Parts: sequence; C-alpha cells; structure tokens
Amino acid sequence: MNYKELSAQQLFAEYERVSAEYNSYKAKGLKLDISRGKPSEEQLDASLGLLSKQRTVADCKSADGFDCRNYGIAFGMPEMKAIFSDITGIPADNIIVGGNSSLNMMYDSLARAMIFGVYGSPRPWCREERIKFLCPAPGYDRHFAVTETLGFELIPVKMNADGPDMDEVEALVKDPEVKGIWCVPKYSNPTGITYSDEVVRRLAKMETGAPDFRIMWDNAYIIHDLTGESDQLLDIFKEAEKYGNEDRIFYFTSTSKITFPGAGVAMMGASKNNLDQIKPLISIQTIGPDKLNQLRHVEFLKDKEGVLSHMKLHAELLGKRFDILLNALKSGLGGLGIAEWNEPKGGYFVSLDTLPGCAKRAYTLAKEAGVTLTTVGATFPYGKDPEDKNLRLAPSYPSCEELALASEILVCVIKLATLEKMLNK
Amino acid sequence: MNYKELSAQQLFAEYERVSAEYNSYKAKGLKLDISRGKPSEEQLDASLGLLSKQRTVADCKSADGFDCRNYGIAFGMPEMKAIFSDITGIPADNIIVGGNSSLNMMYDSLARAMIFGVYGSPRPWCREERIKFLCPAPGYDRHFAVTETLGFELIPVKMNADGPDMDEVEALVKDPEVKGIWCVPKYSNPTGITYSDEVVRRLAKMETGAPDFRIMWDNAYIIHDLTGESDQLLDIFKEAEKYGNEDRIFYFTSTSKITFPGAGVAMMGASKNNLDQIKPLISIQTIGPDKLNQLRHVEFLKDKEGVLSHMKLHAELLGKRFDILLNALKSGLGGLGIAEWNEPKGGYFVSLDTLPGCAKRAYTLAKEAGVTLTTVGATFPYGKDPEDKNLRLAPSYPSCEELALASEILVCVIKLATLEKMLNK
Repeated sequence: MNYKELSAQQLFAEYERVSAEYNSYKAKGLKLDISRGKPSEEQLDASLGLLSKQRTVADCKSADGFDCRNYGIAFGMPEMKAIFSDITGIPADNIIVGGNSSLNMMYDSLARAMIFGVYGSPRPWCREERIKFLCPAPGYDRHFAVTETLGFELIPVKMNADGPDMDEVEALVKDPEVKGIWCVPKYSNPTGITYSDEVVRRLAKMETGAPDFRIMWDNAYIIHDLTGESDQLLDIFKEAEKYGNEDRIFYFTSTSKITFPGAGVAMMGASKNNLDQIKPLISIQTIGPDKLNQLRHVEFLKDKEGVLSHMKLHAELLGKRFDILLNALKSGLGGLGIAEWNEPKGGYFVSLDTLPGCAKRAYTLAKEAGVTLTTVGATFPYGKDPEDKNLRLAPSYPSCEELALASEILVCVIKLATLEKMLNK
Repeated sequence: MNYKELSAQQLFAEYERVSAEYNSYKAKGLKLDISRGKPSEEQLDASLGLLSKQRTVADCKSADGFDCRNYGIAFGMPEMKAIFSDITGIPADNIIVGGNSSLNMMYDSLARAMIFGVYGSPRPWCREERIKFLCPAPGYDRHFAVTETLGFELIPVKMNADGPDMDEVEALVKDPEVKGIWCVPKYSNPTGITYSDEVVRRLAKMETGAPDFRIMWDNAYIIHDLTGESDQLLDIFKEAEKYGNEDRIFYFTSTSKITFPGAGVAMMGASKNNLDQIKPLISIQTIGPDKLNQLRHVEFLKDKEGVLSHMKLHAELLGKRFDILLNALKSGLGGLGIAEWNEPKGGYFVSLDTLPGCAKRAYTLAKEAGVTLTTVGATFPYGKDPEDKNLRLAPSYPSCEELALASEILVCVIKLATLEKMLNK
C-alpha cells in the first residue's frame, strides 16, 4: 500500500484508522524519550570495573612513577596517549589528552582561534571581518551551536551517502572567509554514513582560500560498530601529509561512549606546528586535566584489544535497540512511500526523512502522545530544516520495552502527519 | 651581628666563612626543590579515602537519583554546590561547579570576556583598543600569565600588609581601559597576608571607569589555616551588594589543596546577571564536568564540618614544614639586617625580601648548590621584580629532612649574595 497510489477515499479511511490508533496511544499518558544519543544504564554498567578498585598509595602512580593525584602532566599520561594512538593511528607525540569532554576541546580550539588565531593565521579570528564555517547537514547540533555562538556564519553543505558533497565544498572553500568545516567522518551524526576514501582524499587535498582553514574532524564513533562489519575510514592525516596539508586537521575523539559519557577521557590530535602553537596556550589555561581518571581508564581498557573487546558489549546492547527501531520502521512504514531512513553499521542514530513538510507535525504529534523526539531542525545550521523532513532517532537510552512502544508510536505519527498533509487537514 | 654595621675587614672574614660553608654544601651534589606550592605526598595520602570505594551501580547516583556516569548536570550536583556554599557563604544558586581546575575557570572567564564581553560590556573585550589589568605584586605568577597571554597590559600595584594599596587602586581604576584586578584575598600568594576589612570594602565600593570592571577573587586558601587562629576575611559579595556592585565579582576556589591538586573540584561564584550571561555560553562549550568526581568529594568531605576537620590534617603536615623553614630563617638571618620575611597564618608560601639587587644572585647560588627556588621575578608582572629582592619560598613539598637542609642552604646563599654585593665581588 503506497500512500501516493491511494484514492482520496482510501486515504481518508486510512486517516480514520491511524487517527484512532493515535488516540489510543495518547490515552495511555506515556512518557518516552528517543531524542538523545545517550548510552543506556546497561551500557554504563558495562564499565563499572572502572570504579571497582580500592586504591592504595601505590595505585596512584603512573608507570614511570608519577603521582597522578598531584599537579603536572598537562598533556596526558604516556599510557593514555598510547591507547589513543593505537585506536586512532595518530603518533602519541601528536596527541593531547584533555578532560572529560571532546566538545570542550573543540570549543576551546575555536575559542583560541578567535583570540590568538591558529598556526598560519594572519591575525586572530576575532579580528576578521567575517568568518564562515561549512556545516554538512544534517549534522550534529552541538557542533553548529559552537560556531553559531562564536558568531561565525554557518554555510550548510549537502550531506551525501559518502560524506559532504565535495563539489560544493571545493567551490565554497575558495572563499578566504570560509575558515573551516565540521565533520563526523564515521557513522556520522545523524545519517550514520562513513566518508568514502574519495571524500577524505578530496578534503585532504583541496585548495582553500584561507591560509588557516581547519577541518574539525570529530571521530566520535571511531570504533563504535553495531554489527560484525566495521566501516573503514581513510587516515586523513596520512592523506593530508601527501599534500603538505597536515596543519589543516584538528582531530578529536573521546571515551564518552566507550566508558562513561560524563566521566570519560577526551583527546585532540594535531600536527607539530599546531601543537607548538596550542600547547603553550593550554599551559597558561590550566595546570592539567584529571590524571587519576586517565589512570582508571588505562587500567580498565589496557590497550586497543581491550577497547575493542569492551566495545562488543556496547554493540550487543545497542544492536538489539537498533533492531527494534529498524524493524518497527520497516514493518510499519515499508512500502508506504512516505519515509526513507538509513540502516547504519555504527554510531548512535537513525536519520529518517519524511515527505517534505511533515517532520515538525510528526514531532508535535509524538510529543502530544508522550514521545520526545529530537527537535526538528536541530540537525541543520541555525536549527532550520529547509524541507522540514528530517527526524533524528536515538534508540540507545530507553529500555527495549519502552523503545518498542516509542517506535510504534513514531510509525503512527509519521503516518498521521503525512495523511494530514495529503488530505490538507 | 648586623652586616651593615660590620667593617670591611669583618665583612671579608664573614664572606670567607660563608663561602667555605657554601662550597661544602655544593660539594654534596644535592637535588632539593622549594620552588612550588605543591602538596606533599603525605598530604595526598590524607585524602586517599576519596578513592577507597568499590563502587556499585547504586553508588553512582546523586541524592536525587541522577546517574553521575551519564551526560547532564552542567553546573554542578546540588550536594557539591551545598558544600561550596557552606564554605564560601555564597548562595548555592550563585555557584557553578567546574572541572578540576579553578585556574581553568578563571582563564575561561577572561577568554569569554574577550570573545563575548561580560555582563555590562559595551563590546567584546577583543574589540577594545587596549585592556589594562591590575596586578598587586608580589602576586601569583599564573594569574599574571593569563592576562599577559590574552594581550592585556599588566599594571603592577603595590602590595601592602593589608592587601593591595587602595589609594593606588582607586586612582588607577578611574581609567576605563582598566578592566579588572587579580586578588588572592586570604593568605595571599606569596606574601601570606589577608585583606583587611577596609581593603575589601574599598574594592567593593570604589568607582570604576570601566562599566564592566571585574575583580578576579581567587580565594584559593579560604580555609587553609596553618595555626589555631584563622584570619577573617570580609564577605566581598555582601559588601558589594550594598553599593549595587555585585556584578563586579568573579569568585573562585577549589578543593585542589583540600583533596587532590590534580583531581579536585573547582567552583566559580557570581551574581545572577553574570550567571545569566555565562551559563548559556558554558552550555555550548561542554556537556558538563565530571560528576563522579563531585560524588566522590561529596561522600568524602560530607559538609563544612567534614572539610574543616580534614583541613586540620593539612595544617599539621604543613605547619611543621613552615616551622622548619621559619626557624632556619630566624636563627640564620635574624638580626643581620639583610632580609625580611612574613610569618603567615595560612596558605603555602613564605615571601622573603633580600636587600635590593640580591635575589637573582641568591637564586643562582642556590641552583648551583642543588636547591631550586621559584624563579626570581615570577611573582611580578612580566616576571620582572623591579628591585630584584623578592624570593617566594614554598616549604610544602619536600620531606622535613630535605626541607631542613634546603633551608640551611637558603640562609647561606642569601648571606653570600649579600656579602658579594656589599664587597662589590
């Protein structure tokens, strides 16, 4: 039954049926939430070993005898750098370990750019007439919010199945006012896609008008596979080095979705030129991040193998939730011709496109039935979805039972919103 | 024996004697350090209870059931705010809890001022022609470094026994380019003095040329007494409120020297107007600080009584070290007329003034004998001690035995540097 092939009468009958179903959900007075990419309590429990040690004095020392309780080691314990280096392929010397938030490291990087410029800047960015930043959309709302807050002009770029539309990007970056681009290159938030080798190569190679252009490479889901297969992402540093463009890359990741979202460890990777500019500034900003938490992570995760084996627990817990949501979408919306969605191999989101003009209404209907969805438009610069069609679905946090119910209601409200539109209700 | 009353011959004999003593120290090949206000390992051990829990799922929740492992609570757990509120006298609603570094919160506050301005700013500070910042000196090198790095002009202000020279401050702040002042109001770094009620009142009341003047009130040693007596510091917020100047104050403290320097909890206190401007910006910068570490602190410190009782352990460990240093100074330099120093009731430092022009030489002599002192000039803006006479002495970190030896050598090098100067060596 494709809605577009139905007669007016058939559509109306379907509308009556779906409305009744909707009203029955509404009557239940539910309170469900699939709005946020937040790990579930079960996932957090998988990392409880991080907190299980009764620590003695000897347990507070790093491998080389440094007392992690005291001041010092501003840029990360060697052991913690080694784990990040193994996971990312970035040499340990090019890594700075931060506090618990990679978003904070991204914000700080751009705040430093505002006040001091970056390596190669003719002047601090706050002294520029205007700064533009490329925002492949749909994308991550918190990225866009950082650059919007800093006063940059956000330029939306079309997001394809293999990454940002590179023809568009290459044309836009000729403008010297365009100073950077946001990227979640693997299991992208929210579309779940991984950048193709071709896209990574073109990002590494492209000529930019600004001498101090930066790629904000937020590899948040670097090892966050849902299935046995893992998407492969090209090493952007190695590609960029081929063209002498390694200073272009600010690389970020964290253990927020490996261990604890609120108490993990974040890192930044950058070229020597960049680090030579950044490290003295960080040394002025702080005496250094929490090394005891790095020590806990080193003990718990051990090495890359340890991390990968730990990630299988997350894959299991997340995988069954993705299955519930995707099966509900397939059986409820499949063949109706009113929605398209991805089936990601990793990450935290399913991105669903309704027919144009139906997303906001579906959001409101869901809300009134007690299901919180991500605010429509949040995945676009300035919070404006030009076609009002994208819904970001986050199945990670609810219990499986809650998620099953939320998914049913989601299917119902998408159908109802579409029928209303088609019937000019 | 006052050196100034000795004949040339007597001075020369003393020089010969002290030189011989110095050479005997030098021959020992020592490696001692009294340069940094860093707690000793014994002090860190006093807080080991913070790390002694084998945590279960139930132990990860705040009093109101929030899971501290996950995202959320950007501005601090209510329980942690309550402890800081009890200690500082600031209402919990006016407190933001941060990560492990109050210096980081200070830097971020001024970096935000640069990019966005503060509440009441006509424009972002980076758009001002010039910014000047008052630096009572001797003072804390890391404060001065923050404002120097941000490109502000540092204006030294004389530090008296009751705080910054307020006649000087009141005259300087008429200049609208003067945007703020650094203060360590209690057990000041390095002079150990506490601001008098009169100084606090004048800071709270004074008229400033800049509409967005800020007092950076770093109350780092708020409850860090060394003796039974505690210096009393007037509540600057209450004073400022009397004159409608409460927006002038950015207040900071942390548990760095209560629990662990590298893994404590920091806070900022500010008026509602300031917080209304700051909180939305912090919400863009980060998803929030490590709440598990706040939870550990809440469990370990419990309440104000718990904190004060814990501080007695520090007072004992620090007190004996201050006694060793002060006794060595008294017996070695007392009556010679060549040095003056304070005897603080709290904090981490003894500040010693040599005769003008002797401090750098004493530093070099100490270094050559294996004793690291704080770099001379570090306590002044731009690292320049105009009279080359101030030495900041930090007795906290070494063992008592090491400290006793370092103190003897310190006495020796101060005598030797002075004698060299008097004899034009």
